[in-house]
This record gives sequence, C-alpha cells and structure tokens, in this order.
Amino acid sequence: MMPSSVKTLLAAETALKTVCISGWVRTRRDAKAFSFIEINDGSCLANLQVIADPELENYEQIRKLTTGSSVSVTGAMQESPGKGQKWEILATAVTLIQTAPEEYPLQKKRHTDEFLRTISHLRPRTNKYGAAFRIRSTLSYGVHRFFQERGFFHVHTPILTGSDCEGAGELFQVTALNLDQVPQKDGKTDYTADFFGKPANLTVSGQLEAEAAALALGNVYTFGPTFRAENSNTRRHAAEFWMVEPEMAFCDLFQNMAMAETFIKFLIGDALKNCADDLNLFAKFVDKRLMQELDVILSKPFVRLPYEDAVTILKQSGRNFSYDVFFGADLQTEHERFLAEDHFKQPVIVYNYPKSIKPFYMRVNDDDRTVAAMDVIVPRIGEIIGGSQREERPTVLDARMKETRVSAADLWWYRDLRRYGSVVHSGFGLGFERLIMLVTGITNIRDVIPFPRTPGAIDF
Amino acid sequence: MMPSSVKTLLAAETALKTVCISGWVRTRRDAKAFSFIEINDGSCLANLQVIADPELENYEQIRKLTTGSSVSVTGAMQESPGKGQKWEILATAVTLIQTAPEEYPLQKKRHTDEFLRTISHLRPRTNKYGAAFRIRSTLSYGVHRFFQERGFFHVHTPILTGSDCEGAGELFQVTALNLDQVPQKDGKTDYTADFFGKPANLTVSGQLEAEAAALALGNVYTFGPTFRAENSNTRRHAAEFWMVEPEMAFCDLFQNMAMAETFIKFLIGDALKNCADDLNLFAKFVDKRLMQELDVILSKPFVRLPYEDAVTILKQSGRNFSYDVFFGADLQTEHERFLAEDHFKQPVIVYNYPKSIKPFYMRVNDDDRTVAAMDVIVPRIGEIIGGSQREERPTVLDARMKETRVSAADLWWYRDLRRYGSVVHSGFGLGFERLIMLVTGITNIRDVIPFPRTPGAIDF
Repeated sequence: MMPSSVKTLLAAETALKTVCISGWVRTRRDAKAFSFIEINDGSCLANLQVIADPELENYEQIRKLTTGSSVSVTGAMQESPGKGQKWEILATAVTLIQTAPEEYPLQKKRHTDEFLRTISHLRPRTNKYGAAFRIRSTLSYGVHRFFQERGFFHVHTPILTGSDCEGAGELFQVTALNLDQVPQKDGKTDYTADFFGKPANLTVSGQLEAEAAALALGNVYTFGPTFRAENSNTRRHAAEFWMVEPEMAFCDLFQNMAMAETFIKFLIGDALKNCADDLNLFAKFVDKRLMQELDVILSKPFVRLPYEDAVTILKQSGRNFSYDVFFGADLQTEHERFLAEDHFKQPVIVYNYPKSIKPFYMRVNDDDRTVAAMDVIVPRIGEIIGGSQREERPTVLDARMKETRVSAADLWWYRDLRRYGSVVHSGFGLGFERLIMLVTGITNIRDVIPFPRTPGAIDF
Repeated sequence: MMPSSVKTLLAAETALKTVCISGWVRTRRDAKAFSFIEINDGSCLANLQVIADPELENYEQIRKLTTGSSVSVTGAMQESPGKGQKWEILATAVTLIQTAPEEYPLQKKRHTDEFLRTISHLRPRTNKYGAAFRIRSTLSYGVHRFFQERGFFHVHTPILTGSDCEGAGELFQVTALNLDQVPQKDGKTDYTADFFGKPANLTVSGQLEAEAAALALGNVYTFGPTFRAENSNTRRHAAEFWMVEPEMAFCDLFQNMAMAETFIKFLIGDALKNCADDLNLFAKFVDKRLMQELDVILSKPFVRLPYEDAVTILKQSGRNFSYDVFFGADLQTEHERFLAEDHFKQPVIVYNYPKSIKPFYMRVNDDDRTVAAMDVIVPRIGEIIGGSQREERPTVLDARMKETRVSAADLWWYRDLRRYGSVVHSGFGLGFERLIMLVTGITNIRDVIPFPRTPGAIDF
C-alpha cells in the first residue's frame, strides 16, 4: 500500500479503514494502556498521532522509539477524542526503519536560531524552519502563478556575465584558471586561456537581458539567483539570494508602480490562503503583530510619494537620523522605515529619485534632475522592491552612459534596443528573501534561505 | 485606453468596436485602397493585421513604416475577409513610436541560426525564437505546476558550493580575490583572504542539499542553474544550463522511474495543449516528424531495461559503434540512441548500472556489482533524465565514499542524514534544455537558451 501524506489524511472528511503513513517520530509518550506516537512527514506543520497498543508484536521496540526515528505505520484512521486534532491512527503495524541515536541534535527543546544555522541540513525538520521553507515554496510558486496568469513569459537570464549591470563593484569573479598559477601578461591576468577568453562575473541582476526579451515578447519576468560579494555581516545581506524581475514593454512608471503593488498584495494574500497553519506559527511565536501588519498591507492602497516630498517629511520629522537627509541623498533603511512605520504606518512607494544617485538605465525626467525610479517601502523591512521606467531615448541613454562611465562598447547590444523599435518600458526587482521575511516576521536573512552564503559561510 | 495583447484579441469571440494594440511592424504592404500592416507584440506567434486607409492624417508616414518599427494602433476589430486570420483591425489611429532604420538586421528573409546567435538580443523577435522562448516559459511553468500540484516543495539549493557533488572535475571557481595578485602561502593560493575563507565553486547539482530537504519535508524539487566548465564545443553542451531535480523520501528506484515517466509525459502534453501554434511552427519548419515522435512518447509505457540486457542488445545489434560495449562500459549517446530510435523505437529506461561507473551516493544492489541507477533515454536526444535510489545505509555509504575518494570530512552533514532517521529515498535530474530540444526539435542547445554560455561566448 502506498503511504499517504499526513497533510492529505488530516484533510480527510471521513474515517478511513486502512491507511499507511511514513515519517519521523516527533515525540512518544506512554499512557496507561497505550503508547502515543506523534509522526511528522514534512507535508505540513501538524503531526498525526498514532496509537500503538501492547498487542502489537514489536511493542517493546515501539516503546523505545526515539525522537527523529523513521517509521512506517499502518492502521485505521479514526476520530480522535484528544484535543487539537480531528484524526488519529490506531496502528495495526508500526515498522521501525531506523532508530535515531540519543545524540540526535533536535531533541524536544528550544534551540536558538544561531545553533540551528550550524545544522542547516537538519533544521527544516523543526516546526519553525519546516514552516519557513514550505512558505518559501508557496511564495515561489505564487510568483510564477502571478506572472503566468497575466501572460508574462519566464526568461532564464544568464548567471555568468561579462558586464556589471549596475556599474557598481562587489562582483564575484568566475574562472576556470588555476588560481595557484594564474597566467600573466604584462603584469596582468592573461584571460586568453580562461574559459570565456575574458573576465567573467556572477550576475547582480538579469534586468538588461530581460529588457531585450521584453522588447520582443512584451511582458517577461526572471526569477533566479543573484550574487553580491559584499563583505558585510548584517541580518539583511547574503552573498547569494533570489530576485524576481518583471520587465514590461509599453509600461510607464505609474503602471509599473501599480503592478508592484498588485504583485505584493497577491503574494501576501496567497500565503495567507495557502499557508494558514504555517503562518500561524510565526504569528504566535515569532512576531505577534504579524497578522495585523500583513492586513495593513493588504487593506490600503500604497502611498505614492515623490522623493522630494519624502525628503521634506524626513527633515520635518524631528528625528535624529544617523544619515543626513537632503535632496541628492540616498534614503537609508532608517529613513525608509520611518516613512513606512512611523509616518504613514503602511507601505509607501517613493518615486522620482535624483538622477545623481541612480544608474544610467533609468529614464531621465523632464526636470533633468530626477529619474523615473521607484522604491516600494514596507514596514519592518524597508525597501522590498526597486524599479524604474527605462531610458528608451538613444541619445539620452548614450549621454547617461558616458556620464556614469558605463562602457558603450560592452553594452552595444543594449544600445541596439533603443535603435530598433524602441518603446516606453519599465520593470522592477523584488528581493525574494525580503518578501519571505516580510511574510513570516523572520528578521535574519540567514533563516529564510535553506543553505545561506555569507562571508566565511559556505558549508553544506 | 490600455492596450490589449494580440493573443487576447485573436481569441475574442465577437467583433469589438474599439481596441488598442502596441507592438512592432513585421511587414507592411500597399493594396489599391489601403495599407496593410502586420503587427506582432510577442504575446503569440500570430500577427494582427491592421488596415490603414488614406483618410488617416499621417497616412504618408504610415506608408513608410519599416519592419521593426514600434507603433500603437487604435481601431475597430472586425472579421477579416482575408485567409488565415479571423480578425483584423480597421485603424482609426496609427501612432508611430520609433521607425526602425534600414540596417535593422531582421528584415523579412531567412536568417541562419549561426547568424541569429550573434544577435541574441534581437532573435526572440523572429517567429522561430519567439516560439522557442514562449515554449521554454510554458515548460518552466509546467515543471512547477507538476510538482506543486503533487505536494512537492520547491527548494532553492545553493549555487555557490564548497564541495563537488559528483566527485568529478570541470568546476568553475568563484572568488572575490584579485586575479592579478592572488595571495599565496607556501606556493599555493591563500584563501584566508577570500570571501568564504576557502575555495568556492559553482554547483553542478543541487541533489545533496535536496536530499537533506527531502528527509525533512518529504517530497521536494529544485529548479535552477547549474554549471560545467567543460571545454567542449558540441551541440549538446553549455557551460550554464538549468536542471530540475526532484527528491523523494520513502521512494524506491521503481517509483522513481514511474515518476520520471509521468513527469516527461505531463510536460509534453502540457506543451501540446498550451503551445499548439508555436509547436506547429517547429513541426512545419524544423522537424517534420516532431508531432509523430511526441505522440510516440505520450502513447506508450516507457520500456524498463536492465543495463545488462541493454549491453546484450547492443552487442547483438551488429552495429559498428565508435565505443565498445561491455559490462562496465558507460553507454554513449550512440548506444542510447540506437536503443531508443532503432531497437525499441520509443523511450527506454535503463537501470541497474555497474557500480564501477556511478557515483558514491547511488544505492548498491544486492549483487554488489550494480547500483540502483536509472537513465531515461528518448529518441533524438539520448539521455534526458538520470537518477537513482540513494544509498541510505550509513556503513555502505561510508565504504563507497572511501572507495571513490570522496571526502567524508567535507560531507559530514550528508553522512548525518544516514544517522538520524535514514529512509529509502530517490530522485533524478532532468536537463531542462534537453527537454526543450526534445519538444521543439531544435538540435543545438545554443538555440534554446536566451543568452547561451559556451567556451569563448559570454557576450550580452
């Protein structure tokens, strides 16, 4: 008989004469006449309770079942008289697969997040991390459903790249050369012998390639890993993280903002609907205000706030910020959080940022001092989405590339997109891990990535 | 008025008084009283025909519209008297956005695949590549739908890794060190100053981490980029490609094979249903036998063939293979294709391969000379899926690691999975590009990846 998942069985509407489950023992306790075993198979947060009676031929073995042991159980699923569960299994057979030894690290007690990070291979077996990674999976599927149902095409933009999209450093370099003996020519690395014949990096964004795709297919999105070799050990930064980047032809900044808002609301609504049990765990144990805060995001239109007005609000706030605020200053997390958490108490979309602090590809506004950029800022997280209308005018683009010292030769193909049927187009990037942090209340990015990569950390 | 997509309009059931589309001119021609413009917006293969009459105030401009120019059109959608299309738009306004210059490379004529690779940023604007990348998107979504609807969780396994899963070379190395001046200690690279404090590579598979996830969450899958620094310029190899890797707890080799077969059939059926027009293009212009071959895959159960029987068949074939066949020889593409194309004329799953040619993590069979490995072999492609039941017995795993010189210290966490509630489990890997090649009949992997990476090629 094929085993059923705990999730399927718990959703059953009637008792079932014979069922079979396979999973891992969470706890076991003896009552007067029985042994109660809680089995989890990872399909959902809940365990299924199994009742083993002393008539079972291996009852002595069952009584010694330890936390983490693997078992298969056959029996009848019947209504449970116990609290907090609808069904339980009265076992006709309990087959022990492997006993977990006493040193199994996940004994029933509270573990710190720090400790659990050292056993990333085991932590999804805990309630909290099992829930986090099930939510991650649901949100990932939600991203695809959102775009596919709206006629967007998924584009796999390259991870290995010869260019640096943002014109900013902090790139990982990729090579097939032997680092012990790098060939040199005139005191510099001789890349002619390397795999690509020139330097190669890990991508920081698929945007530029997504633009090429959007100007052919209309609406597209990417969803893949991106990389930053930023040597900062914070709760918000990882060296490897996933980004969602839609790119839309014939779409201006305001339509772009509307899409970003719809997208965030869709994903939160989707998680609330499809991960109710897992989310409740976070609302109960991780952040008591979680549900209320998600509700605020869902229930109101996001504020639209020109950057210049944001600066005014921040200046008049009376707050003592670590970083000065003035026209031309990039907003820091402290500013963003003040706007979303204290001033508006809801998500805010700041737009029309100063040209001087933004990359070459953002469309220059008529005032010539701002660009059609937008950031979606949410309580607790700060910036969760950054986007812009792209500069579609060839001469303005060329001037901006020159101004910001971006190589026109490297990006010949990107410039081509402005020569051959250029159109208004826009897009944004969503940091997928920040979304999971927003939805779960988890405050450290290391705890929403199955095997996080940060400075010095590449185990597993 | 918001523009509609060509795809949506072409699916309309009734005429529409006022519609608006934005897109690119594919062709334009003059008739006696009108100008006919074919507009494509990437949403589907078909163009929408626009009729511009001389009454339009910018008619002289319209008459000069070139291929590749961007336009917006408003008008009435009415039944088309012309052949091959149900609807056309009688324009009330045609707004020129940008005229494409004469040197626009995609003039209406046949281009070679080789030439189109040099303009990867423009080729999705052609019928063939637009269709290929729409199919790629549909198949990608199909992968997620298949697994999510079956209760699998999507796991983002790491791209940056300190270990080499297969124990085989050909890895790209990742570093934040300056290659011009690599720090050394005792004549070797000193990694203490590097980002992770030790050597880091790009992953060749997410399997080992997926196993950790499966032993917590039950059924999981990965879908992400993988990398090989293999310096071979063939039609079948790219340095960067996407892999799908499901991993299932409580699943043996035979259940694994059944899942692989169901999966392939689901994806092909999905493409036939959701990409009918795009697939017809390939059946018409790329591979005339395509539909028949896809039908063969869908209509029969895949053959199950022990490796040893495959060797016998190949030996008795009378064929003059380039590579010898004997027990212990790895099957080459020529052998695989003989089995699937000539002998069985349908997909074949070869299983129980010799232990000596397979990696340490595959489960050793009772005969101690084979392992519970399986490859799904399809006509035209050869191997499209490789998988196995994993070695779940700690002592056997340790012995195999020693035998194959895989570092037990590096994989301490993988060994842990066999100490703490080990269970029978299995999984496989599907090369996503090979799937697209199978479904479209495209024979070069460079033509199913938007921006392919191969030796010397990292433009765009």
